[in-house]
Order: sequence, then C-alpha cells, then structure tokens
Amino acid sequence: MAGGVPRGGIDLGGTKIQTAIVDPGGEVLGEARHPTPTSGGPADVAQAMEDALREAASSAGVKPEDLEGVGVGSPGDVDGKTGVVSAARNLPDWEGSFPLGETLAKALGVEVRLGNDVQVATEAEFHLGAGRPFSSLIGVFWGTGVGGGIVLDGKPWLGRGAAGEIGHMVVKRGGAKCPCGRRGCMEAYAGRAAMEAEARRQHEEGTKTDLFKLMEKHGKDRLTSGIWDRAIQHGDELAGRLIDRAIEALGTGVASAVNLLDPEAVIVGGGLGVRFGERYMEPLTEEMDKHLFVNERPPAIRVASLGDLGGAIGASLLFAK
Amino acid sequence: MAGGVPRGGIDLGGTKIQTAIVDPGGEVLGEARHPTPTSGGPADVAQAMEDALREAASSAGVKPEDLEGVGVGSPGDVDGKTGVVSAARNLPDWEGSFPLGETLAKALGVEVRLGNDVQVATEAEFHLGAGRPFSSLIGVFWGTGVGGGIVLDGKPWLGRGAAGEIGHMVVKRGGAKCPCGRRGCMEAYAGRAAMEAEARRQHEEGTKTDLFKLMEKHGKDRLTSGIWDRAIQHGDELAGRLIDRAIEALGTGVASAVNLLDPEAVIVGGGLGVRFGERYMEPLTEEMDKHLFVNERPPAIRVASLGDLGGAIGASLLFAK
Repeated sequence: MAGGVPRGGIDLGGTKIQTAIVDPGGEVLGEARHPTPTSGGPADVAQAMEDALREAASSAGVKPEDLEGVGVGSPGDVDGKTGVVSAARNLPDWEGSFPLGETLAKALGVEVRLGNDVQVATEAEFHLGAGRPFSSLIGVFWGTGVGGGIVLDGKPWLGRGAAGEIGHMVVKRGGAKCPCGRRGCMEAYAGRAAMEAEARRQHEEGTKTDLFKLMEKHGKDRLTSGIWDRAIQHGDELAGRLIDRAIEALGTGVASAVNLLDPEAVIVGGGLGVRFGERYMEPLTEEMDKHLFVNERPPAIRVASLGDLGGAIGASLLFAK
Repeated sequence: MAGGVPRGGIDLGGTKIQTAIVDPGGEVLGEARHPTPTSGGPADVAQAMEDALREAASSAGVKPEDLEGVGVGSPGDVDGKTGVVSAARNLPDWEGSFPLGETLAKALGVEVRLGNDVQVATEAEFHLGAGRPFSSLIGVFWGTGVGGGIVLDGKPWLGRGAAGEIGHMVVKRGGAKCPCGRRGCMEAYAGRAAMEAEARRQHEEGTKTDLFKLMEKHGKDRLTSGIWDRAIQHGDELAGRLIDRAIEALGTGVASAVNLLDPEAVIVGGGLGVRFGERYMEPLTEEMDKHLFVNERPPAIRVASLGDLGGAIGASLLFAK
C-alpha cells in the first residue's frame, strides 16, 4: 500500500452502481459494477451499493473497514452533512428521504461521505482527468439527463447547494417539453431520455427507424448510448437527426454558460458524452461558436478522460479534503 | 473630511458620463453628469470625462489631485493593468485602443484605475446597495444592452476577463437578431436598442404606436426609458407588447443563469431596470418561475438601490481594495 490508505467510491446511477477502490494518488486498485435495483426501495439500493463496494474491495485485496472512508456520488437532493438523500426520482420508491450515509456506514463499518453525483465527477476530472490543466471549468455530463458541475479558481462552486443545473438552462423559450416538466431546457433536446421519448413519438407517427428493433435485438429496455451508436453507424436517419438536434442544443446551452462564466475549459462527460464527444467535437464546437460572445477565444473543450469510473473516483475524493 | 480621503468615480456610458466624489464609507460628496460626446474620438471623450470629474470635485469642495484616486467604469475591452480601453463600440471612433487611464491620470494629476462598467456597478450594489445582505449575486443591468456582473462568495468572478455576458445567453435558439449579430440572445428581446429597432420595424409595417411621436415631442433622438414609460402610461399597445416580451426574455435568461449558479440574489439595475424593475417585479418573477429548476427556493430579486450613481460609486471602489 505504497500510495497510502485507499478510499472507496460509489457512483449511484439510475442504471448502474459503479464502485472503485482508489489510492490517494488517484490509482484505481479495484472496481465493480452492479445494476441498480429497479424495484424495492432505498434500503434495497443501499444493499446493492454495499455488495458492489465489497466486491471492489475484495478485488483490491482490502477490507471495507480498513478504507480511509467511502464516498458516494448520489442523485437527488443530497445533504452532505446528515447523509440523507431525498427525491432521487430515478431510483425506486425514493421520492422521500432516506439516511443513506448512516445505513452504508453501519453496513460497511467505515465513515461514509455523500456528494452530488455530477459535482464529484466534475471534481474527479478537475483533479485527475481531462480538467487537470485548467483552474476553472464547467463539467457537462451528457447522459440520461444533462447534468453540470462547476469549478472556479480551483474550487467547486455549489451555490446554495443546487448550482450546475446546466441541463435546465433554456435554449428555446416555448420549445420542447423536458422530462423536468418545463419547456425548452437543453435536456429536452439533448438528454437520452428525452431523445428516446422523441424517437418513440416520431416512430409511432410513422417515421422509419431501426432504433427500437436494435434495442430489442440487444435485449435492452431503453435506447442506451450503444444503441444510438449502432443506429447511427447503420445510417439510421431518425437517430442521426436526433443526435444532431442534441448537439445543437448542447452547443447553444454550453455557449450560454460560457458567456456567463468565461471558464478556461468545458469537460464533456456522461454516457453519451464519452461515446460521442470526440466524434461530434467539430459540430459541437461549431454550434457553440454561433453563440459565443467572445468567440475569438473559446474555452478548451475536452472529453472526460476518466470514463465510466469518473463518478466513483470523484466520490472517493470526498476523503481528499 | 471625517470619512477619510475621498475617491473619484467615473461611469462612462454611451449616452452620459456620470461622475461622483465618494468618501470611503460610500457617501457621495459631489457629483456631475455630462453628455458623452457623439463625435470626435477617444481624446474628446477623455476631455469630457475630465471636465465632469472636475465639476464633481468642485461641488464636493476637493481638488482632483487630493483624491485617493479616480476609478473608471468603462465599456469595451478594458485592460485594468495597462489602463487601455479597446473596441468601445458605443463611443465615437473607439474601435481601436486608447490609453484612457494614462490620459486621465496626466490630466487630473491623480492615480486612475479602470474596470468593466457593469462589473463595478455590480460590486457597488454588493458592497453599498441592494446586494448588501447577500454573499453571492448576479447583477443584471437592463439598459441599451443587457449586461451582467457576478459576485460569488463575496468576490467578483471575472472568468478570463469576459464573464457576466448574461445578455448574450441564448433564450431562443434561431430567434431574433441581436445587436451583437447573433440570434436569440436575451438582449435581442430585452435590450433598449433592440426594442427600439423592433418598434421601428413594426411601426414602418403599419403598427400604430405613439413611441416615435413622443420621442420627437420630448426632443430625443432615441427611445429612452422615459419615452417607453410615457408610452406605456398612455396605453400604447406596441410599447406594452415589447416591454412584456422583454420581461419574458429577462425572466427566461435570468432563470437559466440561476439554474447554473444558484446565487442568493439577483440585482436588477440599468436604465430600464431601475425604471421598470419594481413595477414589473411580479411578471418577471412569474417568468423566472417557469424555468427555475429549484423553484421552491428562488433567489431574492432586488432592484438596484444606487440608481444612476451606482456605476460611478462602483468605479470609486476600485480604490477600496
């Protein structure tokens, strides 16, 4: 254990629970991924998180109770002080509040700290990933929704606890309905869930597409980033149009955020971001350029480099402070 | 001079030059307002600034050379280190660069510091005005254009020097042409200049309005905030529609900014903001509410309390650091 006492990290997502054991230098010593329970309630999710963390610890050759601590990046309203998570609407029966920190700490016999999933992933990229060269950046996590994290002058900016909702910046007043219920948000065009809903609507209206055939063929119950990728590689027109529309919305919303904050860099992560970021870098940059107020000096745009592990690594960094 | 050595402040606007002599406690000891020259070049503007500052100093009973220094809030690209202002496109023949700081320092015999006009006005409201109760805020200056300033955790956030361009956040992708040349910016709907251009266009197409009659009657060459006010009080339908449209765009854009930064407060200033802010507070709040992601806990919205003097007072604060 040359690198010091390792830490655990758990990235709690709507689809999967990703865990990692990380040494203080950022090296991943072990990891595991379990599906997020789709039924039951918060206690079942906590059980799955415990199992996944134990598996990662086992593969790293450490016991959970010997870790410096276990950090959790969670969706919903996260109270870092009490360890309570509320209104995690992508998780089963989690409309109310659940003492996730306390539950996991008892189960694992180790201190547990909680943070916002997107913010910890942003800080992971800032400290250990694509954001290392920069002192200020916006993280844009393009996945089922579109989340954001902010680092200014080397420090996270959390506002009153709810900063970073870049996916709900408006790109088109009176525009498409967003999963959040409002209109014209960036996520209404760019979020995977919104894209799937729009694809389904157009498919039901008679637009040809192989998206749903591919989904069934690969045994999925939703249009994952992999399904979108295959459809585009097959030349599926609807898939192509909807990805182009997502890129337009992302470019517009990110440019708005850059006009407001003028950061050194924008880091694009998330399931769709990691899969399509490099491939769509040119159209994304072009769309941003249309709306950047100081367009002779755009921020650096980088794809997140920690990939699927960024969230879990970032969660482990809750013990780096 | 119980309050310590006073400072001078100059707010350089496209229409007027407002100067103030301010004691270290923020009290205004003297002030003057001169029209900004509309012909000539930067040297003529600097001369008008000197005259206005001398007049304010005289009314305060101090000599310029006895001031601690003179701060200037300037439009354009402001280099605070060199005192050079470039591309101040609302000022006559000021496309290039001019050593404004050096010129004024020689003329007035006192140290001169330069800052961005909107940022210094935001800091004035933060330290001495409507923003005093808060530790983080966004200043929205609704005037000829729509400018913004940011204070986070008590400190200005300038980004790489160009942060705060809230007027160029996109509220409607593919929407109205903005004076900046791009499409769908908040300023394209809410800026006084854009509103005037739209009123003129609709008037020329046959829409009835008294806006331009009122403008001529009052000897103005543009639709000032006072003209808009009179037209609305006369029940002018076009004026009412365009103000409503401006409020919609402001509410949408400010909500986007709040979703990203989650500040404690939003301060609304500028010529139109000070004139209409209180009166339109309810529709503005309603428009914001439509797009706030955490709408059960909106930021405080306050109208700037330093009024027309905010810019000059803020400029004087360049010597408070």
